[in-house]
Amino acid sequence: MPKAPILIDLKFSGRAAIVQALGQHFHDRPVVDLADGNNAGRDLSDCRYAVLWNPDDDLFERARNLDILFSGGAGVDRVLELEGLPDAPLVRFVDPSLTRRMSEYVVLQCLYHARRMPDYARQQTETHWQQLPPAEAGDFTVGIMGLGELGQDAARKLKVMGFDVIGWSRSKKQIEGVDCFDAEGLDAFLDRTDILVGLLPLTAGTTGIFNRALFEKLSRSGPLGAPVFVNAGRGGSQVEADIVAALESGVLGGVSLDVFASEPLPPASPLWSHERALVTPHIASDTDVRALFAHVARQIARFEAGEPLQHVVDRTAGY
Amino acid sequence: MPKAPILIDLKFSGRAAIVQALGQHFHDRPVVDLADGNNAGRDLSDCRYAVLWNPDDDLFERARNLDILFSGGAGVDRVLELEGLPDAPLVRFVDPSLTRRMSEYVVLQCLYHARRMPDYARQQTETHWQQLPPAEAGDFTVGIMGLGELGQDAARKLKVMGFDVIGWSRSKKQIEGVDCFDAEGLDAFLDRTDILVGLLPLTAGTTGIFNRALFEKLSRSGPLGAPVFVNAGRGGSQVEADIVAALESGVLGGVSLDVFASEPLPPASPLWSHERALVTPHIASDTDVRALFAHVARQIARFEAGEPLQHVVDRTAGY
Repeated sequence: MPKAPILIDLKFSGRAAIVQALGQHFHDRPVVDLADGNNAGRDLSDCRYAVLWNPDDDLFERARNLDILFSGGAGVDRVLELEGLPDAPLVRFVDPSLTRRMSEYVVLQCLYHARRMPDYARQQTETHWQQLPPAEAGDFTVGIMGLGELGQDAARKLKVMGFDVIGWSRSKKQIEGVDCFDAEGLDAFLDRTDILVGLLPLTAGTTGIFNRALFEKLSRSGPLGAPVFVNAGRGGSQVEADIVAALESGVLGGVSLDVFASEPLPPASPLWSHERALVTPHIASDTDVRALFAHVARQIARFEAGEPLQHVVDRTAGY
Repeated sequence: MPKAPILIDLKFSGRAAIVQALGQHFHDRPVVDLADGNNAGRDLSDCRYAVLWNPDDDLFERARNLDILFSGGAGVDRVLELEGLPDAPLVRFVDPSLTRRMSEYVVLQCLYHARRMPDYARQQTETHWQQLPPAEAGDFTVGIMGLGELGQDAARKLKVMGFDVIGWSRSKKQIEGVDCFDAEGLDAFLDRTDILVGLLPLTAGTTGIFNRALFEKLSRSGPLGAPVFVNAGRGGSQVEADIVAALESGVLGGVSLDVFASEPLPPASPLWSHERALVTPHIASDTDVRALFAHVARQIARFEAGEPLQHVVDRTAGY
């Protein structure tokens, strides 16, 4: 008896990579790729598994018999908001390549600010050679908000580079060599933080958490004289008008933002051209579809063998 | 009996830091700071130790009885060229803070290029949101030329970040997890290298070594399609006209340069304004004078206790 079909609805840029990766996975079952025009009117009621990113509104009406939903990215907030989302297990994408790339982005941005690269970039545009007072990683405390797989790996690598690292999460974590704070300790955490790194999921509790009141509680005694904010979590966690105002008033000395409330970041946003803002188009840790499909195949194999699924989202917590 | 005076002739920018650090060291002996105008005509024949960076031409005529010379920086090429340099031991500056900061610079620049930040910086100036094909550290081989204290620490940290790392030095080194090459293996080393990191001392053998012929032997099969060159060793090792030509012709895809044949880099240099060149004013690992004076004090204590000096330069090798 043939195995149940798998539905693929991934509205990623980079179509060629998906086609190539599909050629290497799911050889044991039919694959229904909705990006293939031949599948436009296909009856989807036989599909038991779905791998999703930005699916069409009518997907869950058409695919009525899904046993497992797989998110195409690490964040599941968009999937959870989908109309008609069935009550099947939703599996988050967790993979070493996602984690590695997120840590690369975080270490890169922390070093970029700690080593005064925004100042040296400006000096280069002015053909101006001047050595600024030296600062090194060890002079900075990096505070990470969000201590899941991504936050913990970033903490470890920041420490190898010499940064002092502290962490905050809703429920208190224990990480060797990292002072950890929970909800009640937020102000104490912020008071020690020279470089704030956002790696939070988007939930009711984190929406708009990175706002003016929070920025004003960050340490101002670091080597740069003003704190830095790096966000690679979710754009909905930040209040962009407050970020712009904080850069203008000196409450923040610089930011690196990879995520935005609305993506692509609208052309009218003042963040595009702000001298102290580094803007990247959500590339800190984009999904490697080869790793995504390997992860999906592993979880389906567990399910069909009667073993429990891993990385299932807690819908009450929202991640 | 008072201890022998120490001579300080450090033509660094950042005079205040020197004065402050002198307040914390050498309390057991007279300090003759030549930047203090009161010492302009002082008899220096009683000075037994000298800490030097860009001393005046007549220094060694005036200070005729030096037992030990200390270089104010990690590189000793400029000291070795000084006219009238006495035949006393010359001690190199080796310090964990120098090493740490050099590794920060190297990891920062390698991540900056590997994660396509020059492209994303250009896109930001154009208000252009586009995700480029993803690349991660593990997709790149970083080849380090120069495997002393600095090169070995950089190699270790690049590996933590996920880069594949290989190394080259005049005499072959053994470093765990790093394929090492020597003089005869240079072509094989270059053929595997996607990002070339220069950490070489300046000697007769390394002058101009980073030239067109060498760049043309680098790997072109990395994720960026063209190799990257990072130099944080000595400017005299690079042929800047060849770097500009290699950037123009696509032989090099990008460079990060912290050192130059002539410093400050002359305003007329095309490197200042080249889109694929990141220029910094010799700040990768500038001397922390507090650490320098602590190192000098340690070595003088060893010398006065009859113990051998550490980090003495081999004048034949030139480092």
